Amino acid sequence: MNEKALIVLYSSIKKFIRARAYSKLWNLTKKVHAADIAAIMDKLFPSERIELFHVIYNNDIEKAADVISELDPDIAAEIIIKSDFPPEKIVELFRHISSDDVVSILDELPEEIAEKIKELMSPKRTEEVEALLSYKEETAGHIMSTDFYALSEDTTVADAITAIQLAREKESGFYLYVVDKEGKLVGVVSLKQLILNPPSTRLKDIMNRDVISVTVDTDQEEVARQVSAYNLVAIPVVDHDGKLKGVITVDDIIDVIEEEAAEDLLKMAGLEEIDRITTPPIKSIRKRLPWLYVNLITAAVVSSVISLFKGTIQKYALVAAFMPITGLVGNAGVQAIAVMVRELALGEVSWETTRKALLKEILVALGNAVALGIIIAILGQVVTGKPIIGLILFLVLLGDMVIAAIAGTLIPILWKVAGLDPAFGPGTFLTMLTDGFGYFLLFGLTSILIGKLM
Amino acid sequence: MNEKALIVLYSSIKKFIRARAYSKLWNLTKKVHAADIAAIMDKLFPSERIELFHVIYNNDIEKAADVISELDPDIAAEIIIKSDFPPEKIVELFRHISSDDVVSILDELPEEIAEKIKELMSPKRTEEVEALLSYKEETAGHIMSTDFYALSEDTTVADAITAIQLAREKESGFYLYVVDKEGKLVGVVSLKQLILNPPSTRLKDIMNRDVISVTVDTDQEEVARQVSAYNLVAIPVVDHDGKLKGVITVDDIIDVIEEEAAEDLLKMAGLEEIDRITTPPIKSIRKRLPWLYVNLITAAVVSSVISLFKGTIQKYALVAAFMPITGLVGNAGVQAIAVMVRELALGEVSWETTRKALLKEILVALGNAVALGIIIAILGQVVTGKPIIGLILFLVLLGDMVIAAIAGTLIPILWKVAGLDPAFGPGTFLTMLTDGFGYFLLFGLTSILIGKLM
Repeated sequence: MNEKALIVLYSSIKKFIRARAYSKLWNLTKKVHAADIAAIMDKLFPSERIELFHVIYNNDIEKAADVISELDPDIAAEIIIKSDFPPEKIVELFRHISSDDVVSILDELPEEIAEKIKELMSPKRTEEVEALLSYKEETAGHIMSTDFYALSEDTTVADAITAIQLAREKESGFYLYVVDKEGKLVGVVSLKQLILNPPSTRLKDIMNRDVISVTVDTDQEEVARQVSAYNLVAIPVVDHDGKLKGVITVDDIIDVIEEEAAEDLLKMAGLEEIDRITTPPIKSIRKRLPWLYVNLITAAVVSSVISLFKGTIQKYALVAAFMPITGLVGNAGVQAIAVMVRELALGEVSWETTRKALLKEILVALGNAVALGIIIAILGQVVTGKPIIGLILFLVLLGDMVIAAIAGTLIPILWKVAGLDPAFGPGTFLTMLTDGFGYFLLFGLTSILIGKLM
Repeated sequence: MNEKALIVLYSSIKKFIRARAYSKLWNLTKKVHAADIAAIMDKLFPSERIELFHVIYNNDIEKAADVISELDPDIAAEIIIKSDFPPEKIVELFRHISSDDVVSILDELPEEIAEKIKELMSPKRTEEVEALLSYKEETAGHIMSTDFYALSEDTTVADAITAIQLAREKESGFYLYVVDKEGKLVGVVSLKQLILNPPSTRLKDIMNRDVISVTVDTDQEEVARQVSAYNLVAIPVVDHDGKLKGVITVDDIIDVIEEEAAEDLLKMAGLEEIDRITTPPIKSIRKRLPWLYVNLITAAVVSSVISLFKGTIQKYALVAAFMPITGLVGNAGVQAIAVMVRELALGEVSWETTRKALLKEILVALGNAVALGIIIAILGQVVTGKPIIGLILFLVLLGDMVIAAIAGTLIPILWKVAGLDPAFGPGTFLTMLTDGFGYFLLFGLTSILIGKLM
């Protein structure tokens, strides 16, 4: 369904929910792909989501399970909590959801609910889920699926095909993994190779021995990098003995990439966690305040710089009107940060690269400072009628731009060395520096130069 | 290869390039996956990239072609231009690259070089490439591969398998597309279904008729949304008569998602185009200046607000020290923008949603303003010894935070309605408003209240 059709469907669903026309709602949604229902649920308000979910659950529990699998795990968890289902009903729902999706929802549920659900699951399911939960969040072991084809090296193509026929339901259907007697991953065979080779061929004779795999404790971002770099549709996950433990498919990798990208964008604005229109205000306040407290401290630092020049400001109040010039410099510094953050996201940055980056950013800063400074100097002179103010503004811009270039290059690196996330926070510290230094230059030069030349 | 191994390889490659140890360099790289070489090239400086590329090209042109395919098209194009290869050599290289990758490189080459290359290509290749180039950039038709399996409805499973055996080389090997006599897409069959069904079965009896497809002019972001939502590994592309024209595989979709995410991050910092450490300074200046000129205008607006209060500033210079308070408010507004931008990226935002978002953001702003305002008021009073300044600061924060909430919610929506990219620019206009209004409140309230109460 394309975006326009989704919008039309969204309006109809809203209308039926508002009218409590539940049978109409079910007739409308029963033939819609679970992914489309999930996309619409994402845009609904929490109470509407729950109404829609109840309608689907009461008519077709498998469809409800599909929708839950397609939703963001935090939204899925919220629906489950707010639906007031007894744990038995949740377990019934989970029976139709793959273990890896169950794990991502359990991650988001309050511990006591999660524990109760785990107690009620079948022993086999509990074992599968506990195995995944035993790996740290955001690692390959935690997000992998344990649903895969693994056969021995001596299996023939014919037997491999029979094995696939017997296990029709398996999720990841593009590759067959080949393991030795100890369960160690030794090769991979694509379904296409099965088709292209005679039935009596043994897998060991056609398998690709150069399997790209990750270990259970590989970070999910590194898994995503490899799947993306090698154009894979699935990547096997092995333990430290090389034994095959699971498989991660490309659709889960896309979810990882999109999640990380969304987080990076919010972090640039000083939001550590996902905040939505539908998030209750009190929760949003709690998410946003910590960052604003940090901003309060940096603002206080800048304030104290300004307060040093009370006398100058009193004497030359006119110059205060040029304070916004530092905002311009701050934005130039943020551009440098954005470039460095991306560079760091693409991999390691060496000292040699840092040196080159620093040199480059200073050159860019000087170029931009001259281009902008001439205009500002002329404006300053025309508006105030004092050539000396034009000169002061030009020097402020030049000096502060260089500070912005240095800070914009080094702050993200220092952040990374210190183990902090380079997307989170550097901008505020940069603007503290550019504002503080900029005001210092502006009022400092004013008190020195105007005093002497006027 | 994991990230650590890549870093080690990167250092060795740098060393050999510096020492001009070209045969060692080739021995080191010949067994490395083209994707890993591409990842390392991405981090090298332009001159180093070209040296490495020459070494690979001279030893193994197919490998050189693989590396070029794996690189970002703009870097691939840069290497081709700077290598000073005659067009014949480029055409020779392109012979080993799939048409869709050739197109993305041609997009980045200067027109006269692109034209010369197209003239020298084989007529069949030229036709394929021209067909893709005839669709607008960033649409499905432009990025699709024309390499796919399409068979008629009456084909048997046995014949389909023979067809696959005859066309071993095709790129997208997970699905078989089924077309009618006119070439219209009517169904899809997975390789797994071929394996699971008897040889005499006709494709029309096993195919899935509910094929998810996009049209040639679908925007690549919408293609990515659908591949991601429906967990596909490939999506067929049809023209407006429903005729099958090509296929887009998930690896190309991942490239689209990563490219769009990187662009969004840079846009937040006011960079319309990718800028790298390795980009020459003069080019970077040209990329960054336009945005800084926009900032210059907004800074001038704020300056003119301040200049209205020259008299007040002269009288109460102390109050100027509290100007950084508006920076804090600006950051709160940017948080609201980040939430709205993400909301808009996920789909349409209705008027009803806007109203709810506005209400929510104002509530959040009031909550944050009270939490921060009390601290600021106390600080202001303690530092200045004047309770009235505490009151003024509290009121400034409260009023300006509400402005930030309203602007932070509405600016991204107005941007979208006006057809502008919501990731690009809203922050600057918001801070213009919060700075301007904040200073207006600060100095306005000071001149009214201090005058009356002191």
